[in-house]
Amino acid sequence: MLDQKAHKPHERLAAHLSEDLAAVDDMIRTRMVSEHAPRIPEVTAHLVEAGGKRLRPMLTLATARLCGYEGEKHVILATAIEFIHTATLLHDDVVDESAQRRGRPTANLLWDNKSSVLVGDYLLARAFQLMTDTESLRILAVLSNASATITEGEVLQLTAAQDLGTTEEIYFKVVRGKTAALFSAATEAAGILAGVSEDQIKALYDYGDALGIAFQVVDDLLDFWGGEETGKNIGDDFRDRKLTLPLIKAISASDDDEMAFWKRTLEKNQQTEGDLDTALEIMNRHGALEETRQAALGWANTAKDALAILPEDPIRDMLSDIADYVVERIN
Amino acid sequence: MLDQKAHKPHERLAAHLSEDLAAVDDMIRTRMVSEHAPRIPEVTAHLVEAGGKRLRPMLTLATARLCGYEGEKHVILATAIEFIHTATLLHDDVVDESAQRRGRPTANLLWDNKSSVLVGDYLLARAFQLMTDTESLRILAVLSNASATITEGEVLQLTAAQDLGTTEEIYFKVVRGKTAALFSAATEAAGILAGVSEDQIKALYDYGDALGIAFQVVDDLLDFWGGEETGKNIGDDFRDRKLTLPLIKAISASDDDEMAFWKRTLEKNQQTEGDLDTALEIMNRHGALEETRQAALGWANTAKDALAILPEDPIRDMLSDIADYVVERIN
Repeated sequence: MLDQKAHKPHERLAAHLSEDLAAVDDMIRTRMVSEHAPRIPEVTAHLVEAGGKRLRPMLTLATARLCGYEGEKHVILATAIEFIHTATLLHDDVVDESAQRRGRPTANLLWDNKSSVLVGDYLLARAFQLMTDTESLRILAVLSNASATITEGEVLQLTAAQDLGTTEEIYFKVVRGKTAALFSAATEAAGILAGVSEDQIKALYDYGDALGIAFQVVDDLLDFWGGEETGKNIGDDFRDRKLTLPLIKAISASDDDEMAFWKRTLEKNQQTEGDLDTALEIMNRHGALEETRQAALGWANTAKDALAILPEDPIRDMLSDIADYVVERIN
Repeated sequence: MLDQKAHKPHERLAAHLSEDLAAVDDMIRTRMVSEHAPRIPEVTAHLVEAGGKRLRPMLTLATARLCGYEGEKHVILATAIEFIHTATLLHDDVVDESAQRRGRPTANLLWDNKSSVLVGDYLLARAFQLMTDTESLRILAVLSNASATITEGEVLQLTAAQDLGTTEEIYFKVVRGKTAALFSAATEAAGILAGVSEDQIKALYDYGDALGIAFQVVDDLLDFWGGEETGKNIGDDFRDRKLTLPLIKAISASDDDEMAFWKRTLEKNQQTEGDLDTALEIMNRHGALEETRQAALGWANTAKDALAILPEDPIRDMLSDIADYVVERIN
């Protein structure tokens, strides 16, 4: 089991960065404590302990080290990134009324909506305190810009939902907001901290941006394509009428009859049994799933290409492998 | 009507600062625009246009000018303060499910809970972008600390609700969070921007802190004491089982019979007709309302005293008058 795990590139990277990651875990525990409101860690603990893959903070730690950074502030930065991510999850729980998050009951079921909003706000405030501790105005600018982009992406997704006129351009704006903005901020800020050249900072941004987009496009594809092993319910986005890339590609290629189907199922929300199968048929007829797959592979390649001007290092290879791993399930 | 208005000190201060306030209004409009999510201003516009008194940004503008600041960054700072305040209102709307805010339908009825959460997040992100534009790490630290204190206060209020063991100490922590933290950050940050002495920065903090506390204690007192002219429903906090200062003082002085009444009405939420009258009787019997009034007057005096070491200036007199005005309705 352990050996099998160690084959996954993010697990190898985690092993390589184990000391730094332990320092991030410590800082997460220390900084989420509230002297005045001791119940706050009750809400955050289950999210933080469930842990996820700590992918975003790991990107910060890895790219800082790759760029030769030898100080301690990358731990502060990585903790801030994880707090922003956790705050987003808490606020998403309110927004989506999702019943499960990382396989555990969501905070709003454990406690309630009020707590999710307030504790999310608390973690955001803590993230900005941490960022201030990096003493870099440029890093603060990068991360406050990312925070704005994240919320703009979420609002755009809300307003674009069920709108058959949603374009690929809008889709990628949403994806940059909801996923890629924090990835690219995590890597760009690490480069700023390490003081590398502007070209390399740009390359770090491009890597995070492309990796985040690949990550989200794969997720959206697997919603129509995944088997049981992906742990996803096929067709959730169709039922929720989320206009993701496979649907957008299919709709843009649809004839009148097919458009009538999309209007009924997505605009008017009159879905009946068998509609998901029909949706898949139309998508396959127009090659929408295959095109989406190619798009994801393209973004993974963009991510890998961006690494070229960064120093040769085992970490660089692992970052490249992570880009491959993100698209492995569709390759 | 205009003359009558001009007698109110915050109106006189607004007239004195009219150019700066117009610049803040411009900046609010410019910075709340979202290129990617054009619907965001729909949600914020009704809050920003309804306008309130712009008390918090005005405190920043006034104290910066009082301290001899001649640049333009106080406008950035005041806009950031108003965005944080507006974000708090939006998130409060989700939390409290309040039906009215500033006399208009709340955002969550106009649009929905999702929008309130996300647009609040957007304004917070914009506030941090603005704060970064002040290029002062110390100001960023003050405001991110204030943001954390605000959310801690709200969470503490949530956990203290209906708890008869709530002490005055807890009450003042809640009040510092929900009200005073942003007042004191607004004035302290202005002093930092103006580059005055540490003693004066401390005095500015003390003024904002005491003014904010006086403001909230008066609000909590008027909930039991206000006539029709205050625009408040008498007894809302009692019905909502919010342990505010008048209740805390009455409970701490109560005998066994009275405690049984509080347990039934506040802990068990078994309220019937006439209970509010009984609550008022008990509060008056123990002088709880009068003691609360004295506390508010004391905080107003503390605010005025703090101004002593700041430069003599018409603005200083108006700030002192504002402290009097806050307690005028109970004096």
